[in-house]
Amino acid sequence: MKELKDRILTDGKNMGGGILNVNSFLNHQVDCRLMVRIGQELASRFASDEVDKILTAEISGIAPALEVGVALGIPVVFARKIWSLTMPPDSFERMVPSRTKGTMVQLIVARDFLTPEDRVLVIDDFLATGKTIEALGTIVKESGAQLVGFGAVIEKAFEGGRQRLAPFDVPTESAVIIESMEDDKIVFR
Amino acid sequence: MKELKDRILTDGKNMGGGILNVNSFLNHQVDCRLMVRIGQELASRFASDEVDKILTAEISGIAPALEVGVALGIPVVFARKIWSLTMPPDSFERMVPSRTKGTMVQLIVARDFLTPEDRVLVIDDFLATGKTIEALGTIVKESGAQLVGFGAVIEKAFEGGRQRLAPFDVPTESAVIIESMEDDKIVFR
Repeated sequence: MKELKDRILTDGKNMGGGILNVNSFLNHQVDCRLMVRIGQELASRFASDEVDKILTAEISGIAPALEVGVALGIPVVFARKIWSLTMPPDSFERMVPSRTKGTMVQLIVARDFLTPEDRVLVIDDFLATGKTIEALGTIVKESGAQLVGFGAVIEKAFEGGRQRLAPFDVPTESAVIIESMEDDKIVFR
Repeated sequence: MKELKDRILTDGKNMGGGILNVNSFLNHQVDCRLMVRIGQELASRFASDEVDKILTAEISGIAPALEVGVALGIPVVFARKIWSLTMPPDSFERMVPSRTKGTMVQLIVARDFLTPEDRVLVIDDFLATGKTIEALGTIVKESGAQLVGFGAVIEKAFEGGRQRLAPFDVPTESAVIIESMEDDKIVFR
């Protein structure tokens, strides 16, 4: 997706250690028009897969997942990271490490919203180590729903996420793939 | 907004204590098509106000704010609640109580994304006590940007949020207003 590559080169910040700061257009400030086009791009990759639900993780997954959901005309479920009074105690639950926060976080999904009848596409902003998306895939499997594929806005290929997701044996699509971020550069595949 | 009132009566759960559970279509599972129409509805209320930026708070504010941003063709900034490696230490910051989580949470906005040139509309999912929206309004004022108004998807009029926001002297619009939630009922204005 050329528009997104150009935007990453213009406004993304390589902070070292494999951290790409896209706060100015993707996950603190959101360029809504770009996000709509990202949603359409990812939706087009799964257009023939009869997806009927999107699963993502709060927080930064919500915007791209919502626009994929709008493009496909289907609902989005976002896994919550903090228990609240409205979440049932028997919810699906996984622990995953947060890269940018340096802690473990929970992913929590109420059982009502993932059923064996669902065909689920998992969407997130980044595919890096793949641990968050792997946890979402595992929750889909546990629910008995059909896992259709994985979609990410930005894949950092050098962190091995795609290999981690290989055992699920479903298509993995990214709007852009970054091959390396060494020496302050950002090199796309 | 009749469609949203009907949906709240069909799928919302009055959990007592003024807590309305709308997890099935608004803030755990999101009905994307409904959210687009909510965004258009709130956008229409501020169509003549030359808004050029939306400010919201993660997590549940993101979806409605994004669709208002899409409808108006402008960017959305969502205040972060947890410090991460990508947030500058001089960011704007306020503490607010979280009703459903029973704790205090931070709202953090990087200075780069709110400037004196901006005309800012604050959007959130709920207007209840108004403390979150008040904190966002205060951040807008601190940034020197022009505060244009407040918009919420669901206002719980009996919690006094509108009175709390009155000192800002800007329009406050809600897609639906709930007058009372006593005795297991949901009564709209």
